[in-house]
Amino acid sequence: MLPRGRPRALGAAALLLLLLLIGFLLFDGRPREAAARDRDPQTDHRGHNRSDCVLLRPLPAKCELLHVAIVCAGHNSSRDVVTLVKSMLFYRKNPLHLHLVTDTVAKNILETLFHTWMVPAVWVSFHDADELKPKVSWVPNKHYSGLYGLMKLVLPGVLPPALARVVVLDTDVTFASDIAELWALFAHFSDEQVIGLVENQSDWYLGNLWRNHKPWPALGRGFNTGVILLRLDRLRQAGWEQMWKLTAAQELRTLPATSLADQDIFNAVIKGHPALVQPLPCVWNVQLSDHTLAERCYLEVADIKVIHWNSPKKLRVKNKHVEFFRNHYLTFLEYNGNLLRRELFGCPSPPPPEAEQLQQAVAQLNAGDACFEFRLQQLTVPRVHLTFLPHEPPPSRPNDVTLVAQLSMDRLQMLEALCRHWPGPMSLALYLTDAEAQQFLHFVETSAVLSARQDVAYHVVYREGPLYPINQVRNVALAQALTPYVFLSDVDFLPAYSLYDYLRASIEQLELGSRRKAALVVPAFETLHYRFSFPSSKAELLALLDAGSLYTFRYHEWPQGQAPTDYARWREAQAPYRVQWAANYEPYVVVPRDCPRYDPRFVGFGWNKVAHIVELDAQGYELLVLPEAFTIHLPHTPSLDSSRFRSSTTYHDCLQALQDEFHQDLSRHYGAAALKYLTALQQP
Amino acid sequence: MLPRGRPRALGAAALLLLLLLIGFLLFDGRPREAAARDRDPQTDHRGHNRSDCVLLRPLPAKCELLHVAIVCAGHNSSRDVVTLVKSMLFYRKNPLHLHLVTDTVAKNILETLFHTWMVPAVWVSFHDADELKPKVSWVPNKHYSGLYGLMKLVLPGVLPPALARVVVLDTDVTFASDIAELWALFAHFSDEQVIGLVENQSDWYLGNLWRNHKPWPALGRGFNTGVILLRLDRLRQAGWEQMWKLTAAQELRTLPATSLADQDIFNAVIKGHPALVQPLPCVWNVQLSDHTLAERCYLEVADIKVIHWNSPKKLRVKNKHVEFFRNHYLTFLEYNGNLLRRELFGCPSPPPPEAEQLQQAVAQLNAGDACFEFRLQQLTVPRVHLTFLPHEPPPSRPNDVTLVAQLSMDRLQMLEALCRHWPGPMSLALYLTDAEAQQFLHFVETSAVLSARQDVAYHVVYREGPLYPINQVRNVALAQALTPYVFLSDVDFLPAYSLYDYLRASIEQLELGSRRKAALVVPAFETLHYRFSFPSSKAELLALLDAGSLYTFRYHEWPQGQAPTDYARWREAQAPYRVQWAANYEPYVVVPRDCPRYDPRFVGFGWNKVAHIVELDAQGYELLVLPEAFTIHLPHTPSLDSSRFRSSTTYHDCLQALQDEFHQDLSRHYGAAALKYLTALQQP
Repeated sequence: MLPRGRPRALGAAALLLLLLLIGFLLFDGRPREAAARDRDPQTDHRGHNRSDCVLLRPLPAKCELLHVAIVCAGHNSSRDVVTLVKSMLFYRKNPLHLHLVTDTVAKNILETLFHTWMVPAVWVSFHDADELKPKVSWVPNKHYSGLYGLMKLVLPGVLPPALARVVVLDTDVTFASDIAELWALFAHFSDEQVIGLVENQSDWYLGNLWRNHKPWPALGRGFNTGVILLRLDRLRQAGWEQMWKLTAAQELRTLPATSLADQDIFNAVIKGHPALVQPLPCVWNVQLSDHTLAERCYLEVADIKVIHWNSPKKLRVKNKHVEFFRNHYLTFLEYNGNLLRRELFGCPSPPPPEAEQLQQAVAQLNAGDACFEFRLQQLTVPRVHLTFLPHEPPPSRPNDVTLVAQLSMDRLQMLEALCRHWPGPMSLALYLTDAEAQQFLHFVETSAVLSARQDVAYHVVYREGPLYPINQVRNVALAQALTPYVFLSDVDFLPAYSLYDYLRASIEQLELGSRRKAALVVPAFETLHYRFSFPSSKAELLALLDAGSLYTFRYHEWPQGQAPTDYARWREAQAPYRVQWAANYEPYVVVPRDCPRYDPRFVGFGWNKVAHIVELDAQGYELLVLPEAFTIHLPHTPSLDSSRFRSSTTYHDCLQALQDEFHQDLSRHYGAAALKYLTALQQP
Repeated sequence: MLPRGRPRALGAAALLLLLLLIGFLLFDGRPREAAARDRDPQTDHRGHNRSDCVLLRPLPAKCELLHVAIVCAGHNSSRDVVTLVKSMLFYRKNPLHLHLVTDTVAKNILETLFHTWMVPAVWVSFHDADELKPKVSWVPNKHYSGLYGLMKLVLPGVLPPALARVVVLDTDVTFASDIAELWALFAHFSDEQVIGLVENQSDWYLGNLWRNHKPWPALGRGFNTGVILLRLDRLRQAGWEQMWKLTAAQELRTLPATSLADQDIFNAVIKGHPALVQPLPCVWNVQLSDHTLAERCYLEVADIKVIHWNSPKKLRVKNKHVEFFRNHYLTFLEYNGNLLRRELFGCPSPPPPEAEQLQQAVAQLNAGDACFEFRLQQLTVPRVHLTFLPHEPPPSRPNDVTLVAQLSMDRLQMLEALCRHWPGPMSLALYLTDAEAQQFLHFVETSAVLSARQDVAYHVVYREGPLYPINQVRNVALAQALTPYVFLSDVDFLPAYSLYDYLRASIEQLELGSRRKAALVVPAFETLHYRFSFPSSKAELLALLDAGSLYTFRYHEWPQGQAPTDYARWREAQAPYRVQWAANYEPYVVVPRDCPRYDPRFVGFGWNKVAHIVELDAQGYELLVLPEAFTIHLPHTPSLDSSRFRSSTTYHDCLQALQDEFHQDLSRHYGAAALKYLTALQQP
């Protein structure tokens, strides 16, 4: 319980004492908005425009672990959670344990994200939302959060029995202060109180918004459940499950479905048991809903703690100060999440085991080594956000092929054309900053071609370190392909329009699934012209080749990269033919999804595909060239990453060192037979 | 004066009162680091890991204007100031007045920056550092800050006489909290105290760092002057100027030059007059110098307020926790400054007059207008950071020419080649995000070619809004050209190696300065190939043209853009020849620096150069084609900005509407004669 006065005179101890007493006496425990604001223990010491202040409030103990629960389902909410978590981590000074109630999609995304984020002093557990559906699906609900909104009601039964207190957050809130200050409000709960809530900042529950608007029952304006403090221990003891179910069942006799999901039920229960609720200061849930009255809260205190985008319009909500709130939100939307991988001072916590291994490996690097940057980049684990945009996994088909590629911002222009050329599933990894990921999102949303495709999975790998970890990024795309076969392409290639169908037919014909371990080679060509009419058949392609409008890929600079494909034979070929591996061969191939990964030691540019083909050959993959398949490289400006390093001698020396190590590892894995790869390279 | 106790039990009012009294008694006013820390009025309420807290401290009055003084000279310090100011603005809740003591370079940069930043409730005044030099130049000084470091000593005489209090900051500090909390510490000054400082967190002044190390005198470890609270009124009254001069002169009799600039002198004065200083809590100046003892401060309090990068190594300083501090710094280095253009709640302040006019203009736009985005973009004033990197203005030469162009991140690759082709001065405007500006900085610093050039001025125009404001960006580059003539180029063109010399000779020959009002046309060509050997003469160029390796610029898509140049005549020409304007003509020209600006209404892509040539013709510029001049366009991937909009019909409709308005404005300015431009367009 929190007494507090508002002395305006400076430094007078006597007055302070008097006001402390008055503060005690003033407290009346009723959920009035103004009273809640006045009682705000925070307002005084951080609402910097008061002349004096007294603070009497227990803060969490040093290094106390704070628990947060969030219900999250689907691709879009998973993105929202990341922004919420970034804002929370930016201001936090305590260790945190996140309890995430997720559907399969959100679990897949967030598990990988937190695993690769490796933030010190953050623990994450997952609870299966799908298992909880039967517990709430009997409640008819019209709110946009669907069934998932209702799941906040069952948290006391879902979270570990030993967990006594938890902060529950909606995915659409943004922190502007340290969550420890919110946690501290638990200390003000009376013995009876079990739930802390901020009053609603709209007139919804007053039932006067429009004619015949009949909301669920609530105390006055009712409470908003975007930010909740739950005393789980007391809720369990008090038989919460029975309590809310009875209330809901009873109201549903006379009322239609809930309009605001869990919030209607929480409010109905509180209406019947007002002693359960501890009203929280309004700054802890500044609600930017339509018709919001939030201004009454924040204009006085000037110190906002949590912003709640609780309108279906979200950032597009109309509000006099929305610019201010939007800027705060954008700060964290675009914030480089890598910067949040920072220790908690005075609160040492062991890093996650993987992080510790990495730190040890980094510590063993020799900073004097000319290739230090290369080795450091190899050891860097980038943060990964899988399926950044909504994605429908392809139906299970035995010969289906996913196009796998990676790209960065300077190749976004390729995506529409790629979608037109490849009607099948794609798994694309994008190497981006957090801010670029938002530009990418906007790019897809404003493209009719891209937003029509649900079978293209976009995985964001967040930029970190000076060298481009091309093979790490490729491996993310490869690992996420969901069909039995993958076409390992590069984003600046456009496949023949017929390639997707032709590949599936070829896989079936060649009985790859059962009989042969093979990599199907798709012959690669290039055009040097931006204006270019794509050949619709092999015959047209050959005509262009003869006319000098097309070349075989890298014909002028690096013919050995494609030479074994034997373009002369391909011209005439009617059936697939086998070719032999040779040094520096780097064809574009179709292989089973469980093929070897790309070697992540090759960072920056050079040899990253060559090494992969060596690995395929070493593992006994036949190389079969398909007679009707082709793909064409389009011209583009050389990327900054490549041009920066191609000119440096260090780069060339390090690439040589990496190749040597690669060959040593090959011999270790595949024995003396693997010596052929080194020997082949050494031949003139 | 600040009493404070540390009760650990919760909620016991009696104990609190007792501790308050003990707090009063404990206070001893001596500059011991531990005492300073213990007395920290902030530690308790924001060092969240204490169990309880009492806060008795006056905060600035609601909306009180806080004053900050910073000495800043040169290009690099100007960039540092921006990061410092961003961190300050992020946490501030009060109006601020910045008093900047600047040299000419810093004034030019920061005046434009703040003028275009238009942050509400921030005022900036400038004081000329060069005028102050004589006041401090008699003090010999070895510190890397040079003469400018010493200028903090003369602030009481420089700042307005009515100004009583000011926070003085070094350019290498970063805020991690609200500056109002620092300002609040003025209230703890006793009647005698005139200066608030944090103790040094190194043993420098103890004189035991190495043998024969003889520092200037100081009390114990002395104080650090990276963050200073100055009672200007009292300093003036106490005859501060006399005081520091006498002390410095006296010490200089036995000591060599100052090693730490103003800091040595402040400490020497304090050693003689300890009553002048109010020691501040160490968290207000966490010093990351070499040999720092800062850990003693921050490991206990876990709540850092201001970070001071006071080692010449800056971010590369070795420190166990440097990763944490660096991440905090990078947060603001890369922070989108546009997001700080946010109102102060509860503290309304009139926006700067320009901002108000803009707001009114924006309010008058019709959001239903299909071209709303175009009109909004035109009204957007982008933040501009002139000469982002060190730059030497070219010596004054009567016929000199500056190459003017604009670019964004995807054209950085062009810069090295451009530098090789154009040995003269350049003024380049870059349209970038804050984070990209840092990548750009790194790009230049790691390029031997670019970092060798001091005559290339890079002006950063910060991205804002959905459309590319190409003409606004061009105008920034044009306005900053310092030679009498400018070559208005585009960044994807490489000029003939001889062009710079040839243009200057032509200007002299044609007597452009005195006799003729002319635009010299540089004929434009293009190659569609990335591999391309640049012609070293007109003869070579013509051979390539005949061989089909080169084309005239946009020969295939838009020949009318260059047609009036009359390439057939150019082949044979031996002397400059005059050509007539025709519809859609957009040659690359050399004109006097005071030529008309580009029309900023053309945003996105299309017609942005055409309109400029129309304007030149309307103003009576002769168009003279130079017989030996040429420039060649290199191929590149179409930019995202252009490809996104070229396909949209709205874009085409709006471009048409903008053209119509342009023609209307032309008639208004130039009368009936200007009708010819519209008529020419309408001809088939």
